[in-house]
Amino acid sequence: MTQTPATGATYADSGVDTDAALSGLDRLLKWVARARHGDGTGVGASALEPEFFASVVDLGGGQGLALSTDGVGTKVLVAQMVDKYDTIGIDCVAMNVNDLICVGAEPLAMLDYLGVERVDADIFEEIGKGLHAGAELANISIPGGEISQMREVIRGVSDGTGLDIVGTAVGLVDLQRLVVGDGIEDGDVVVGLQSNGIHSNGLTLARRVLFKEMNLAPNSNVAEFGHSAAEELLRPTAIYVRPAMDMLREGIPVKAFSHITSDGFLNLLRVRSQMGYHLHTLPETPAIFQVIQQGGGLADEEMFLVFNMGIGFGVVVAQEHATVVQAVSRRHGFDSWILGTADSTQPGRVFVEPVGLMGEDDRFRRL
Amino acid sequence: MTQTPATGATYADSGVDTDAALSGLDRLLKWVARARHGDGTGVGASALEPEFFASVVDLGGGQGLALSTDGVGTKVLVAQMVDKYDTIGIDCVAMNVNDLICVGAEPLAMLDYLGVERVDADIFEEIGKGLHAGAELANISIPGGEISQMREVIRGVSDGTGLDIVGTAVGLVDLQRLVVGDGIEDGDVVVGLQSNGIHSNGLTLARRVLFKEMNLAPNSNVAEFGHSAAEELLRPTAIYVRPAMDMLREGIPVKAFSHITSDGFLNLLRVRSQMGYHLHTLPETPAIFQVIQQGGGLADEEMFLVFNMGIGFGVVVAQEHATVVQAVSRRHGFDSWILGTADSTQPGRVFVEPVGLMGEDDRFRRL
Repeated sequence: MTQTPATGATYADSGVDTDAALSGLDRLLKWVARARHGDGTGVGASALEPEFFASVVDLGGGQGLALSTDGVGTKVLVAQMVDKYDTIGIDCVAMNVNDLICVGAEPLAMLDYLGVERVDADIFEEIGKGLHAGAELANISIPGGEISQMREVIRGVSDGTGLDIVGTAVGLVDLQRLVVGDGIEDGDVVVGLQSNGIHSNGLTLARRVLFKEMNLAPNSNVAEFGHSAAEELLRPTAIYVRPAMDMLREGIPVKAFSHITSDGFLNLLRVRSQMGYHLHTLPETPAIFQVIQQGGGLADEEMFLVFNMGIGFGVVVAQEHATVVQAVSRRHGFDSWILGTADSTQPGRVFVEPVGLMGEDDRFRRL
Repeated sequence: MTQTPATGATYADSGVDTDAALSGLDRLLKWVARARHGDGTGVGASALEPEFFASVVDLGGGQGLALSTDGVGTKVLVAQMVDKYDTIGIDCVAMNVNDLICVGAEPLAMLDYLGVERVDADIFEEIGKGLHAGAELANISIPGGEISQMREVIRGVSDGTGLDIVGTAVGLVDLQRLVVGDGIEDGDVVVGLQSNGIHSNGLTLARRVLFKEMNLAPNSNVAEFGHSAAEELLRPTAIYVRPAMDMLREGIPVKAFSHITSDGFLNLLRVRSQMGYHLHTLPETPAIFQVIQQGGGLADEEMFLVFNMGIGFGVVVAQEHATVVQAVSRRHGFDSWILGTADSTQPGRVFVEPVGLMGEDDRFRRL
C-alpha cells in the first residue's frame, strides 16, 4: 500500500460529489419519506427504517418484500471504450441482489431499465447475455424491463453509444428473520469475502487515473494485471447470493451482512447496532488498486473510501461461527478472511489498523 | 381532426425508432427470458406471460407480486426548459402504477432512480414534492431509491441540467383474480377515462413540433391552451389507481384494463383474448393534440400511434356494467366515454371509426 501524498485526488474531483449528493438526497427524502400506503401500518407498511441496504415492505402473514434499486454507474463507459458489453449485465444484477441479501432476503426477480442514446441490437444482445448470466448466479428471474431511447438525455464515450443500465430487484424475507445487525456483541468477528476486482464502485476515479493521468490505452496489456486495463475494470461484480443464502439455510446465526460498495468498510456500520469495528487483517491489496493508488498518487483515506480494496462482502457472526462461514464461502469459490472484531466502546467507527486509518461519518482519516 | 398530409412526420424522425427498438428488445429478451428462480415453478415463478402491462411473480399462497418499471422519458427536458420540477415525479409514479393496476394489482410501493448530471438540492426537493404527490394519489409508499451522479452519461437541455427519472413499482394481486383480458365477448364495451393532456408519451415529437417547427417560446401563452406550451406539456400524467381499485373492490367484473401509452389504442390489444375493437366515439380532441397535429402537419395515423388523444385508461366490461364504471370514474373526477365494442371477427385490430383508421401490428392505417 502506497503511503499518503499530502494532496491526493478526491472523489469529488472525479465527478461524484458525495456531499452535494447527501444534501440533495436529504431534501428529496424529506418528501418521499412521507408517502404511505393506506394508514402506514399493515400490508404495504415499511418494515425497516431507511439507511439499510434494502427497503422492506410488509406483505402480511409475517412476510416481507425486500426491494433494491441500483445501476452500474460509469462502468458502462468502460464497456463502450472497448465495445465489450457481455458482462455489464452481471454487474447490474450484482449491485442489486447483493443489497437484498444484506437484510436476509432471498432474491426472486429483477427488472432492468436501459436508457440508451440509440438502440443497437448487437449491443442489446450482449447486455442480455450478461443479465442472463447474472440472473443465473443470483438465482432470479427477469420477468420484465424497460428500454428508453432518449438521444437528448443519454450520452456516452462517443456519438451514439450512450447507455445507462439500472436494475430493481425484489426478494422475500421472513420478518422475524430480518438480518439487520441486532445482537452484535464485543468480540464478534467480521468475515470478509473476496471481491472480483473493482466491482461497480469508484469507476469515475479509476478511469480518470488509468486513462487520463496514466494515459493507458484501454486495450493494451498491463503487466500488473496480466491483461488490459479495460479487461480488469470490466471484471464483473461478484454475486454473493449463493453463499449468503446457504449460511442462512444452514442456520448459521448471522448477525449482519454488508455489501462493500462506495464508502468501503464504512458499509459495516449500515446496521442497527451501535457498534464499531477493529479490522486487523486485510487481504493483499489487489493489483488494480495498487496501480490506481500509485498512478494517481492517492491517499489511503481516499482509496478505502472509494474502493472495495479486495473485500466485496462482510459477514458478522460470533467468533465460534467464523469457521463455518468461511467454509460456506469457500464452497462457493470465495476466499475469505477474518478481518477483525466488533467493539462497543467505539460506536460508529471502523479502524483499519493495517493502514492506520479510522473511518467515521463518511470519511476516513489517519490515526 | 386534421386530415393526413401525404408526407407526415414520423415518430422515428423524432428520435424514437420503435422498429430498431423492437429488434433490440427481441435480442435482449431472448436471453433474459431464460432466467429463472429455482426450477421456474412455485414461489418466484413468473405467473403471467410477457407483453402484459406488468410482470407478475408468484409469491406463494395464491398471491402474486406485480412489477413494473418505467421512466418519464423526455418530459424531463421540458421541465429543464422552464426550470419547473414539481410535477415530474407525479409522472414517474403514474407511468408505473397505471401499468400495475392493468393486471388487477393493488400498488404498494415504488422505488425511484434519479440519474443526474449534477446534484442540485433545490431541484431534488421539487422532484421529491412531485414523487410525494404522486404517491399520495396512487396510495403507495416510496421506501427507497437511488441517486446516481454521472456527468458523462446524463445530459440535458443545458450544461449541468441532465436528468433521467425512472421508477419501479410493486403491487399485490390475488392470482385467481388477475385481470388479463379473459372472457371478453362480442359486444363488451370499452369505457375510456379522460387523460390529463399529453401524459408521458410522445414528448419527443411534441417538443420538436412545438419548439422547433412552430418555434413557440416555452413560457409564452398559447391561446388554444390558455397557458404556455411548457405548462401544457408538463400537466402531470393522470393516476388511475383509485377508480380502478374501487371498480375491483365493488365487484365490477372488469375484463381488461388498458393504460393508453405509446401505441395509443393498440394498448387495448395487450391482453390475453383474441379480440378486436370498434371505437365509434372519441372525446373532443384536446387542444394540445390539435395544435401539434396542425403545427407539425401530422397524419392521423401518426397522431393515434404516438399520443393518447384524450383517453388515458381503458376499461373493458360487459355492456350492462358500463354505467357503474362511468359512475366510479366520475366519483374520482374522471370524465369517461363508451368508446366502442369488442368484435371477435377482427382479432388484433382496433378500428378508430371517427377518423377512419384501423390499427394492427403496431401501426395505424387509413381504412
